[in-house]
Amino acid sequence: MPQLRKDPIVDRWVIIATERGVRPKRDRTQAKRLLEDANGPFCPGNEDATAGEILAFRPDGSAPNTSGWTLRVVPNKYPALKVEGELGKRGEGLYDMMNGVGAHEVIIETPRHDLQLSDLPARDIEDILWAYRDRLLDLKNDSRLRYGVIFKNHGAQAGATIGHSHSQLIALPIIPKLVAEEMAGAQRYYDFRDRCVYCDIVEQETRDGSRVIHETEHVVALAPFASRSPFEVMILPREHHCSFVDSPAAVFRETAAVMRLVLRKLKKALDDPPYNYMLHTSPFGESALNHYHWHIEIIPKLTDVAGFEWGSGFYINPTPPEHAAKFLREIEVEL
Amino acid sequence: MPQLRKDPIVDRWVIIATERGVRPKRDRTQAKRLLEDANGPFCPGNEDATAGEILAFRPDGSAPNTSGWTLRVVPNKYPALKVEGELGKRGEGLYDMMNGVGAHEVIIETPRHDLQLSDLPARDIEDILWAYRDRLLDLKNDSRLRYGVIFKNHGAQAGATIGHSHSQLIALPIIPKLVAEEMAGAQRYYDFRDRCVYCDIVEQETRDGSRVIHETEHVVALAPFASRSPFEVMILPREHHCSFVDSPAAVFRETAAVMRLVLRKLKKALDDPPYNYMLHTSPFGESALNHYHWHIEIIPKLTDVAGFEWGSGFYINPTPPEHAAKFLREIEVEL
Repeated sequence: MPQLRKDPIVDRWVIIATERGVRPKRDRTQAKRLLEDANGPFCPGNEDATAGEILAFRPDGSAPNTSGWTLRVVPNKYPALKVEGELGKRGEGLYDMMNGVGAHEVIIETPRHDLQLSDLPARDIEDILWAYRDRLLDLKNDSRLRYGVIFKNHGAQAGATIGHSHSQLIALPIIPKLVAEEMAGAQRYYDFRDRCVYCDIVEQETRDGSRVIHETEHVVALAPFASRSPFEVMILPREHHCSFVDSPAAVFRETAAVMRLVLRKLKKALDDPPYNYMLHTSPFGESALNHYHWHIEIIPKLTDVAGFEWGSGFYINPTPPEHAAKFLREIEVEL
Repeated sequence: MPQLRKDPIVDRWVIIATERGVRPKRDRTQAKRLLEDANGPFCPGNEDATAGEILAFRPDGSAPNTSGWTLRVVPNKYPALKVEGELGKRGEGLYDMMNGVGAHEVIIETPRHDLQLSDLPARDIEDILWAYRDRLLDLKNDSRLRYGVIFKNHGAQAGATIGHSHSQLIALPIIPKLVAEEMAGAQRYYDFRDRCVYCDIVEQETRDGSRVIHETEHVVALAPFASRSPFEVMILPREHHCSFVDSPAAVFRETAAVMRLVLRKLKKALDDPPYNYMLHTSPFGESALNHYHWHIEIIPKLTDVAGFEWGSGFYINPTPPEHAAKFLREIEVEL
């Protein structure tokens, strides 16, 4: 059973997951095969290479765990956490820990092995967002769990071990440190100003324009003022919504379109960079926070560094976000 | 002039440093040359390839900026911050920023291009620690500056652009986020228990033994209970010292010996891994904190990942620290 351990000094939880040592990436030949394999475990016809599906979109009404799906959610074969069991919160001297209870799922975004997320039509990307929502809605019914982290690793340098386009969901009995910090920081701002800091950011940025990458009626893509790394992007709804799950359909539709546009621009501008994105939304059961505001952070991995930065929480970014935003605004991509 | 910008939500400062775009690493051929060059800018005889030295140890009494040194501190040729100027703290709507004032120095650890830090005798490593101390003591006299970050990138994957063994010092007008968080967390623990959390960790770990890598009379090397990544190491003094600069000579001597031993063990165990280390000490002018305790964090870079982790502050570590500590305790290295 994996363990969740809390750092005794800062509020950071870590999964100590012995079984993940056997993941495909350990063997580099095998890893390369999985990254390139045109008939891999996520391809149609190979449904038995994964555990039974948790969710699938099957417009043709095909049977579960057969081909015919357009999107499929399955348990991660090498889960960082286990679904079964009690939390078993306990101490060991000054240390705190609990059992590594949680869910680890894979969202297979398309049956097509040859397409990246940014190659998909906006309607298919919207479906991926609806799948994220369905899974978050389902997992929040588990009273042991407090947060669902949805993220994507694109490219080997960003941590992807399988090339077929997919994202992941890790549902946790704790709130990840950076989300907890965002919530605390946004609460301080709200206490001081009686306004949501993200709403204020949207207002100031759209008025100023220099860091706006793209905006639609309901959604804005920005290069954050204090970007940690070159070409960092934040996508967020213009109106106040703390919870991704509870956003109106128009926000889902436009978020998909903006994600597609931004990912296509990044691909063209930076020669298909590896990237990570993560959905930051409110914790399970928190659907009416005045101070928090969901958003997506996209971070291209352009440098090897992140070492010193990782150890200090202090970042050096050689590309001003204003330059990145201008570059991305101006680069033309096929729609 | 580089800018220091504060994230409007979490307490994180970022250097937006346009001029660093011209660093050697951008050109991969050039980068490879600098990593391997046996007659590079940090080699004896090439003193004019760097700016004038700030500090040098010259047991032979040789003249500044000539060969004959055993250790040399010079300004970084591509500094992330500039020494001259006022802080110019200001706002831009809801954002906060200041000028990128600070120091960025390089500690050339040895005249020998062919030796790594772990190849040096413990006495030479001790000299490096004394040089760190001298520079921190000098820089704290600048009232604009609040913190000196000392770190080392070993290997290209850990961010090194020059192969000749060196570490770096960045002195800042702010306290890096992770250090500030450690100080706040340690203060909370102290408020609750009236004891230093690091002293308690030393006490519990040395009694338990399972995560101890090595201990001497005054210094302990541990695999932290909630290690973020495989083979993470913390080295800290057994007795309470908040400030590295003010530690007794015996602590410097034994820290050097323990660093050497640990780095040699990591090199043998993990096939010369890229790594980062960072010295976490109290801010300038804080020399009597009951709740903080200086330490060195060493983080081997064994995986490409850190992407999702980087975006969430939530880590998955496939190697339990107890396994790493046992492995490192048992591996034998030449002394």
